[in-house]
Amino acid sequence: MSTPAIEVDALVIGGGPVGLFQIFELGLLGMTAHLVDALPHAGGQCIELYPDKPIYGIPAVLETTGRRLIDTLLKQVQPFKPQFHLSQQVDTIEMQADGRFLVRTSKNTTFMVKVVVVAAGLGAFVAKKVTLSSLVPYMDTQLFYHLNPNANFAGDDVVVLGGEDVALRTAISLASNVKSPPKSVTLLHRRDIFTQDHAVKNEDVATIQQLVAAGKLRIRIGQVVDIMDEVIDDSNRHLTHLQVSDIEGHIELLPVDILLVYLGISPKLGPVSNWGLDIERHQIKVNPATSETSQTGIFAVGDISTYPGKKKLIHCGFHECTMTAFAAAAIVFPDTPPLLQYTTTSTLMHKRLGVEHGVKA
Amino acid sequence: MSTPAIEVDALVIGGGPVGLFQIFELGLLGMTAHLVDALPHAGGQCIELYPDKPIYGIPAVLETTGRRLIDTLLKQVQPFKPQFHLSQQVDTIEMQADGRFLVRTSKNTTFMVKVVVVAAGLGAFVAKKVTLSSLVPYMDTQLFYHLNPNANFAGDDVVVLGGEDVALRTAISLASNVKSPPKSVTLLHRRDIFTQDHAVKNEDVATIQQLVAAGKLRIRIGQVVDIMDEVIDDSNRHLTHLQVSDIEGHIELLPVDILLVYLGISPKLGPVSNWGLDIERHQIKVNPATSETSQTGIFAVGDISTYPGKKKLIHCGFHECTMTAFAAAAIVFPDTPPLLQYTTTSTLMHKRLGVEHGVKA
Repeated sequence: MSTPAIEVDALVIGGGPVGLFQIFELGLLGMTAHLVDALPHAGGQCIELYPDKPIYGIPAVLETTGRRLIDTLLKQVQPFKPQFHLSQQVDTIEMQADGRFLVRTSKNTTFMVKVVVVAAGLGAFVAKKVTLSSLVPYMDTQLFYHLNPNANFAGDDVVVLGGEDVALRTAISLASNVKSPPKSVTLLHRRDIFTQDHAVKNEDVATIQQLVAAGKLRIRIGQVVDIMDEVIDDSNRHLTHLQVSDIEGHIELLPVDILLVYLGISPKLGPVSNWGLDIERHQIKVNPATSETSQTGIFAVGDISTYPGKKKLIHCGFHECTMTAFAAAAIVFPDTPPLLQYTTTSTLMHKRLGVEHGVKA
Repeated sequence: MSTPAIEVDALVIGGGPVGLFQIFELGLLGMTAHLVDALPHAGGQCIELYPDKPIYGIPAVLETTGRRLIDTLLKQVQPFKPQFHLSQQVDTIEMQADGRFLVRTSKNTTFMVKVVVVAAGLGAFVAKKVTLSSLVPYMDTQLFYHLNPNANFAGDDVVVLGGEDVALRTAISLASNVKSPPKSVTLLHRRDIFTQDHAVKNEDVATIQQLVAAGKLRIRIGQVVDIMDEVIDDSNRHLTHLQVSDIEGHIELLPVDILLVYLGISPKLGPVSNWGLDIERHQIKVNPATSETSQTGIFAVGDISTYPGKKKLIHCGFHECTMTAFAAAAIVFPDTPPLLQYTTTSTLMHKRLGVEHGVKA
């Protein structure tokens, strides 16, 4: 399978706040950029770790949340029509004879770019996996870490494993399905999801209680200690039951056709460490005057980058995007590196931002 | 006149956006700060040069203006109760035996501080002076660059020189004074203030026309080419008339007791160059890891600072405030330098910001 590489000035790896603002800063200087992220949406840590928590430390933003910050940045980059390639990681970066980079993702999307900006935060967020080894062979046939929106579980025994918000929503959604209802839906978590430290939202409690009362949803507290399965043919087995142990050690056999696992996500540095960059304690060393890594043409910004005095703060990442944009422009436009112009007064900036005479159209 | 020096952790020189955010960053790390500015209000260039122009380049702020940006920052620093010392410049900074700094302003306010942060932008904004040398001896007796709010010009011939907003407002205010009206008020500018490039606000045009019709305000277009004065005694003379030349060279004698001059303001680096700091092309050289100048304990941020790759952008100044705050904390709290904590999660940050459980009281 070989589709032609996407040719663009810059590829930004990582769609958190700093990666998004990087597109803005590249755009102001006249550079086009695409963006790759391992998650199925933009926002990175802001969306995964603190979507609804207040943030007070962004300069000139009195109070925001992870989600509102990302929404605002998505609007701010809109004039530059950024293209996002989501749910995929960058696997390889190869420098070409002409100095450009051939970049390939886990979904085999390829890019041919003049500069690469690594804005990968703590690394790529990947789903935490189940540790019970007897479950591993069922991955992608009966065990899933992401719900395919087109999946049809009509007549299936479905077990949703996990206590986070996404597990609850998935269980509620499946148990409420009247068009093609599963045979059973069980929400399984190792602790009581209704205790304070799990903070099920008030509006969800009533919904869950109604579904339980109607026999459409079961709640179980316990841990999967083993499985039961049966042979289908020489090379195939079918997972039939989970053996679930409660806190007192009693075992219950839960019938299962589909196991949906939501144990949270955690960041992994991943393939970044294979790109030949100078790395120190899981961070990429950069020149603070340019944000360039040890590899000419590859830059790093935000939490994944380090330099003397580095502070892992979002607004410091924003500054690093500016350093990167000017240094990148010297590569993309070697004969006419851009001058600093202000969005307040420059007609060129207004044109690029799509504002006429400084007023949004 | 000797009042005791104000003792506080830090003095910030300059109340533009970066100086304001510096107070926020110092405050988050537990340091108290006062601020000095040459202007009678906070805001610096944002208020003087582009109060109503749109700004698009502040990260996570879709669109703002100079004035709105300053209003927001003033609200953001509120938890740290900043104290402003306005309409004065810092004249001298003297290091003491214990490493602290004794700072003195043009109004003789004195501070004893552990760190000084120069956030002086392009320098101190000062009023542009008249160039006619025969007028210079009348400064502060009959010629003024700022209107004293308590001044009483009852019975005087007052000439307001200048075409900017502040000149218009002053002329309107004096001509409308019914309690102690001047004998005459003349607004004198070298060009027609009602032409497009001077943009008198619509609501002002009617007011001015009414005052002119009522004989309370005269408008003149022309330039002061000479003066007339008379001897009072051996060492005193009184300015009696301005000789004003119109565009065709006709001379009019304008009687004058008080001349109020509003020719705009321009930034001057001023006393900064006398503080023994390493300066390069009107900018103070700093270490980008700390924003510290060549003088231990004195920092520089924003447009007045320079380092390799420096870009004169407001959000880069915000980053420099963070570098400064951590380096300053190492001086103010030598035994317990603060760790990086997030406003999203840290209860200490919430306490300092006056928010309980991350929610504003």
